[in-house]
Amino acid sequence: MEDCGIRDLETRLVAACKAKGVSLATAESCTGGLIAARITSVPGSSAVFLGGVVSYANAVKRDVLGVSAAILDGVGAVSAECAGAMAVGVRERVKADVAVSVTGIAGPDGGTPQKPVGLVYLGVASAAGVSVERHLFSGDRQAVRQQAADRALTLLLEASAG
Amino acid sequence: MEDCGIRDLETRLVAACKAKGVSLATAESCTGGLIAARITSVPGSSAVFLGGVVSYANAVKRDVLGVSAAILDGVGAVSAECAGAMAVGVRERVKADVAVSVTGIAGPDGGTPQKPVGLVYLGVASAAGVSVERHLFSGDRQAVRQQAADRALTLLLEASAG
Repeated sequence: MEDCGIRDLETRLVAACKAKGVSLATAESCTGGLIAARITSVPGSSAVFLGGVVSYANAVKRDVLGVSAAILDGVGAVSAECAGAMAVGVRERVKADVAVSVTGIAGPDGGTPQKPVGLVYLGVASAAGVSVERHLFSGDRQAVRQQAADRALTLLLEASAG
Repeated sequence: MEDCGIRDLETRLVAACKAKGVSLATAESCTGGLIAARITSVPGSSAVFLGGVVSYANAVKRDVLGVSAAILDGVGAVSAECAGAMAVGVRERVKADVAVSVTGIAGPDGGTPQKPVGLVYLGVASAAGVSVERHLFSGDRQAVRQQAADRALTLLLEASAG
């Protein structure tokens, strides 16, 4: 299991959200539940974390999160457009203040020259709108997932503490 | 982060599901994404794991998983009825062969004499129907979550290998 050390980010996130009255949601593809698991590892996190969707298959991104077939069949699941739609979709469905999304290629399989292992898009949706960022993380499956989860928690912390 | 050691269960589960052509889904309350994170930690798990819902808030159990208000307002979220409805609900929405659900009280807060910390219900839904079991796990928040996740992975393995 990943992330045996640093609990600091999630502890700070839960404290910040409690202080600000901010509720959270997650939509995870390549991190596969890791972000939600880290948030909910913090005692009292139920006061701020409402829930999330682990949308591993494209059909789940479409049917449960509402990502359009145009995005999935066009630019694909590992794209800025998909990350944005996942964040917006989970925020609406879970009725949270701030939502984060992650979609990428953790490896070891699934990489292509255009979309290599380590390519990860993260989205953040809030009342202010939606933003997306692109990363190319290095390392193996575990390292990619951990870096993506760390960055997602940081984005939630920034969006919630603002 | 929980579960820094044993990857054996999830590795065996993914291998068994690949061999049998079985697809998986998860609906998690007190484990908060831990089961999905453990399954997806296994390389190649995308061949069998379709997705899941982390339904921490009751509104998410109702709106995203379809658990009835009658259950949530009647026997409550930590109940055999809710575990069964969560497993059936996520299996339908994710269109998986086998789904597992977990709802319980990980603590340290939230326990009552009737529903103490460590009380966890697990549900399994498949084409054969739905079954639920009740556990009273001991230990702290981390220990309860880990035991619940271990048991959920075992239930999926039993249901998938059958």
